[in-house]
Amino acid sequence: MSSTNQPPLPLPLDTGRLNLHNINQGVVNAQYAVRGALAIRAEELREQLKANPGSLPFDKVINCNIGNPQQLDQKPLTFIRQVLALAQYPDLLNNKDALKAFSQTAISRAKYLLDQVNSVGAYSVSQGVPAIRKSVANFIERRDGHPADINDIFLTAGASLGITDILTVICAHPKTGIMIPVPQYPLYSATLSVLDASPVPYYLDESSAWGTSPDEIAQRYAVAEQMGIVPRALVVVNPGNPTGSVLSKEDMYAIIRFAATKGLVLMADEVYQSNIYTDSVRFVSFKKALRDLQSEVSGEEAEELAGLQLVSFHSVSKGMLGECGQRGGYFEMIGIDPAVRQQIYKLVSVRLCPVVTGQFVVDCMVNPPQPGDDAYDQYIAEYEGIKNELRDRALALHAAFEKMEGVTCAPPEGAMYLFPTITLPQKAIQQAEKQGVAPDALYCMELLNSTGICVVPGSGFGQRPGTFHFRTTFLAPGVEYAKSIADFHKAFMAKYK
Amino acid sequence: MSSTNQPPLPLPLDTGRLNLHNINQGVVNAQYAVRGALAIRAEELREQLKANPGSLPFDKVINCNIGNPQQLDQKPLTFIRQVLALAQYPDLLNNKDALKAFSQTAISRAKYLLDQVNSVGAYSVSQGVPAIRKSVANFIERRDGHPADINDIFLTAGASLGITDILTVICAHPKTGIMIPVPQYPLYSATLSVLDASPVPYYLDESSAWGTSPDEIAQRYAVAEQMGIVPRALVVVNPGNPTGSVLSKEDMYAIIRFAATKGLVLMADEVYQSNIYTDSVRFVSFKKALRDLQSEVSGEEAEELAGLQLVSFHSVSKGMLGECGQRGGYFEMIGIDPAVRQQIYKLVSVRLCPVVTGQFVVDCMVNPPQPGDDAYDQYIAEYEGIKNELRDRALALHAAFEKMEGVTCAPPEGAMYLFPTITLPQKAIQQAEKQGVAPDALYCMELLNSTGICVVPGSGFGQRPGTFHFRTTFLAPGVEYAKSIADFHKAFMAKYK
Repeated sequence: MSSTNQPPLPLPLDTGRLNLHNINQGVVNAQYAVRGALAIRAEELREQLKANPGSLPFDKVINCNIGNPQQLDQKPLTFIRQVLALAQYPDLLNNKDALKAFSQTAISRAKYLLDQVNSVGAYSVSQGVPAIRKSVANFIERRDGHPADINDIFLTAGASLGITDILTVICAHPKTGIMIPVPQYPLYSATLSVLDASPVPYYLDESSAWGTSPDEIAQRYAVAEQMGIVPRALVVVNPGNPTGSVLSKEDMYAIIRFAATKGLVLMADEVYQSNIYTDSVRFVSFKKALRDLQSEVSGEEAEELAGLQLVSFHSVSKGMLGECGQRGGYFEMIGIDPAVRQQIYKLVSVRLCPVVTGQFVVDCMVNPPQPGDDAYDQYIAEYEGIKNELRDRALALHAAFEKMEGVTCAPPEGAMYLFPTITLPQKAIQQAEKQGVAPDALYCMELLNSTGICVVPGSGFGQRPGTFHFRTTFLAPGVEYAKSIADFHKAFMAKYK
Repeated sequence: MSSTNQPPLPLPLDTGRLNLHNINQGVVNAQYAVRGALAIRAEELREQLKANPGSLPFDKVINCNIGNPQQLDQKPLTFIRQVLALAQYPDLLNNKDALKAFSQTAISRAKYLLDQVNSVGAYSVSQGVPAIRKSVANFIERRDGHPADINDIFLTAGASLGITDILTVICAHPKTGIMIPVPQYPLYSATLSVLDASPVPYYLDESSAWGTSPDEIAQRYAVAEQMGIVPRALVVVNPGNPTGSVLSKEDMYAIIRFAATKGLVLMADEVYQSNIYTDSVRFVSFKKALRDLQSEVSGEEAEELAGLQLVSFHSVSKGMLGECGQRGGYFEMIGIDPAVRQQIYKLVSVRLCPVVTGQFVVDCMVNPPQPGDDAYDQYIAEYEGIKNELRDRALALHAAFEKMEGVTCAPPEGAMYLFPTITLPQKAIQQAEKQGVAPDALYCMELLNSTGICVVPGSGFGQRPGTFHFRTTFLAPGVEYAKSIADFHKAFMAKYK
């Protein structure tokens, strides 16, 4: 943040050793519940079970708090891992016996990618390997039916870092406003706290399956302006996290029009674009929606749309890959001033480059085996297998929630999460107040302590005052934990009746 | 940065589309020459040679601007890459034929590490895999002869990110001062610009082989205080970048005493700790120096030293590994308030976790094959081979510089760089002024355009006014480029005589 235009600040500062009061207060004030008290408690319980099996009312801790599929035994896609093994140890490419363990598709891809970088141990150019950005551009063109340019694409070490970089560039002032959905994945609010900018929350509409209402966005924008905040960007997460809802094309059009009119940077978090579980919805990228809309309008409206600034994010951590630990992702920028793009390049170059193997995973994601490739059948079988399991579990968990007293839950559309509302008894709310925690945090902590199931309270994402939720992934194998949650819920309701 | 205590700011802000004037001015003002204009020009020349060979007075571009050994064909250490290949594709562990290509040492290590994480595609705990942190602690104990605690160790995606995180936590205010050496690796100044904090430069002493003078540090501290800046941390890079100099233990003691007296966080950038090329110097970590010093003192002085806040950084990108693209590293924190440590934990957890394979590389670095292991002989042969080549090239390059008119250069001690002083003719300085670039940037650009050799001007690191330098790595294979530099230098001096 620049101090330009700022009057001199009160001095002296506290010069003692670092403590909670003299360090960056933006860090101190940041909230990040996904890996907060519940996650730490879950680790303690796991250690306790290891040291002293049988000492708890459950025999394992189930992490439903993080979208971390491979921690929960989801198998990685074989094609990707073969490419990475060969990339890490290219001597295998000269070893006939060893090569029998690899598909020809993986061998060719590994050779091709190694040719681009010399070694995965070398820094690449900071924006990412050009050939991989070309793969990404081709993928976007196939997905959207509209052209994409490799110069608009930056590879990243996961979507989170890309989002942080873009926010860092936009946030110029404590009054810079960034519109974020509520509930939201807390990366956004935590990063804005660190950057000392102003979040401008807009509520998603639970009554319409967590829909994004353009009217609500316009209203909150106006309120922020009245408060002296200057909104500069609008974050939309589609499919939603934690809600799992998928935007309709009409709503996307309205959102695009609004962002264009107001000169907002539209930040489209589309990391769950492959995680769609029902035929009744379809993922459309904001890039495609923009280009489609542009083809429908003319005159002043077309001019306004031509000026839209759009940054969309994707990741290898989600989808059917679930390669979280590999840290790969990308963003595509449309309509950003080239001088600003240079600044973004400089910022990412200070961190040298995104992990090169993560860039390779991006290549495999956007350019998977094709019919005729020897890796194709296995790839499709593995991919569809994971997708079907996710859908089945989502439906089973949803059915269990629907049967629980005082619980309602939108049907699963996309992403990796369900976000049920829970009606909590007054006594539970009082108990939480006594403990100084949010009522749904109390609920989630008791759930964890009774069943070993770790979820994230709705208060960690934001929610309308007086409503309570929790977010659970549907990644854990089996569906029996749905019953454990139901049993706990019954006992909890009885306890605080 | 927090807005606490700050009076209301002038409004309204510019609400147009993003441009150089309305984005974060800390980003705009940041300088990062290592990947700046020269690096971009080098890429252009490389593309031109590819498209049109023979169109330039040289046949390849040699990147001496970045410490990126594997880009310049340094072979990775086989042991590490075998572990990573197995970790990426664990099916190989069940394939007898394929396993013949691997050492037993690598097989055991891969199995052990996979047991710790389930899959390299799963997020690990944000602080890093506990078993790997244990390896790091053991390494530090062996290196220093003093205990280390896994709770003090955070694994990172390269040292740069760790340094950024620590600076982010410390920088609480535009007047927060961070003492940095000049010349310095520009990560520090660039990050402080983004964080809107105040760099407090102290000069290294070229006349004593770029020594770090405790008196100079004390003087600059006092001047900063007079200017209303509150120094909170002291950065020391040892072995030095770009200077390659190695600190004496006496100077380290003086620096430690000063930091302890003033309550400064001592940030020890020790990523080049294995890159020592002469028997006349020895790397001592600040942790060891602190503990040794503590054992020598008592009373009030001991009490003061007990309060020292020390964070030291290490990386897999340097040393004989050169695994830059894998993004691995760690920092160890001593004497940091546990509440502050929790804040650091929260900050790193927002980015989820450092790349898991990079964590594995850290494990291999700190716990290499031992005598008796079947991977041992090859490991040692490769390791020593790389070290000898680096030393030979450093000496050859240094000898070439010593023969050049108007060039002086401290003998290579450590790191991967030489940082010669060049005396530039007045006409070259005038020409640079006309072009609006620094005189040494003009020199480096002409060097690149004539020879294809890309180095970084001293102005990118900071230097005493009126002096000029460039930084070159000694990573490029062969030593013939030393002659190209000498030939260019002669022609340049003649041109501007």
